[in-house]
Amino acid sequence: MDLFEAIEKRYSHKEKFLPDAVPLFDLERIAGAGLAAPTGMNSQCVRLIILPDREAVQPLCDVAPTDGMLTAPAAIAVLTDSSKQKAPKGELYNFEIEDYSAAAGNMLLAAVALGYASLWLDSPFFDSEKQKAAIEVLGAPEGYNLRVVLPIGKPDGAGTRREKMGFSERVSYGKF
Amino acid sequence: MDLFEAIEKRYSHKEKFLPDAVPLFDLERIAGAGLAAPTGMNSQCVRLIILPDREAVQPLCDVAPTDGMLTAPAAIAVLTDSSKQKAPKGELYNFEIEDYSAAAGNMLLAAVALGYASLWLDSPFFDSEKQKAAIEVLGAPEGYNLRVVLPIGKPDGAGTRREKMGFSERVSYGKF
Repeated sequence: MDLFEAIEKRYSHKEKFLPDAVPLFDLERIAGAGLAAPTGMNSQCVRLIILPDREAVQPLCDVAPTDGMLTAPAAIAVLTDSSKQKAPKGELYNFEIEDYSAAAGNMLLAAVALGYASLWLDSPFFDSEKQKAAIEVLGAPEGYNLRVVLPIGKPDGAGTRREKMGFSERVSYGKF
Repeated sequence: MDLFEAIEKRYSHKEKFLPDAVPLFDLERIAGAGLAAPTGMNSQCVRLIILPDREAVQPLCDVAPTDGMLTAPAAIAVLTDSSKQKAPKGELYNFEIEDYSAAAGNMLLAAVALGYASLWLDSPFFDSEKQKAAIEVLGAPEGYNLRVVLPIGKPDGAGTRREKMGFSERVSYGKF
């Protein structure tokens, strides 16, 4: 799919998914798109866990019982390794948020290009107790943060889109 | 250009650009791709300034005198509005870094799809004095943060790419 078409078609699918399985090949293409995203000072701190079927997605539903997670036939969990900070001149730089965001953005576009809907689902993991529970479910070692889970599948009906400000309200030329 | 082709072709162009002008229409398509990126709780905190020619790019070169900035025929500055935080349940959420990163990711892909090279140039603006100077050059009001500047143009020669870890080192299935 054309890049600009994928960008235009992408939306946050907060609703249910159809049960149709997502082929592992598609999930791996989506993951590959995430890994190809920019990464601050080449830290490559993003780590992905492909949850290829309901059996793999289900355990996270205790932490994130959303319509999407409860029905998604697959998902990708995006973690960051907090030890991969960079200190080229002594000062420490941490690109965990930038890196996972760029990776998630690429993966959402890749999902759309392959005919799926998805969602940047992060809020259930903000709470420190739920974060801990999710990390345990995923079996991630200390030092890793679960940033976002992308439920992936064919959407069960058209999703809703929120209204956006116009181009001229957010873009200017030469100066602010 | 196909989404996956754009993702594969994108790299961080740290070298010089050719002087060929970038049509404003292309810069606006790139900016539009940025605005279409996901935004946390629909805060839409990202604000873009298109720097359409050398005259507009030059003033930022005092702060960021890189090979790319000193030669780029155009650039897009990405700012975030720190006042656009969200507090749906009392607790305050700030998505400035997530939002600008997703927007920058989309714009880098859009630049590639239109035949340009670009770069996620953020480090010159980490220093608080330089941040202040850049914000002044751009005429942005208080409360705005300059996050990244994307120099955009035809690359002057092939750029370098840094080595990446393999897929299997960063992706697992079902569990970490």
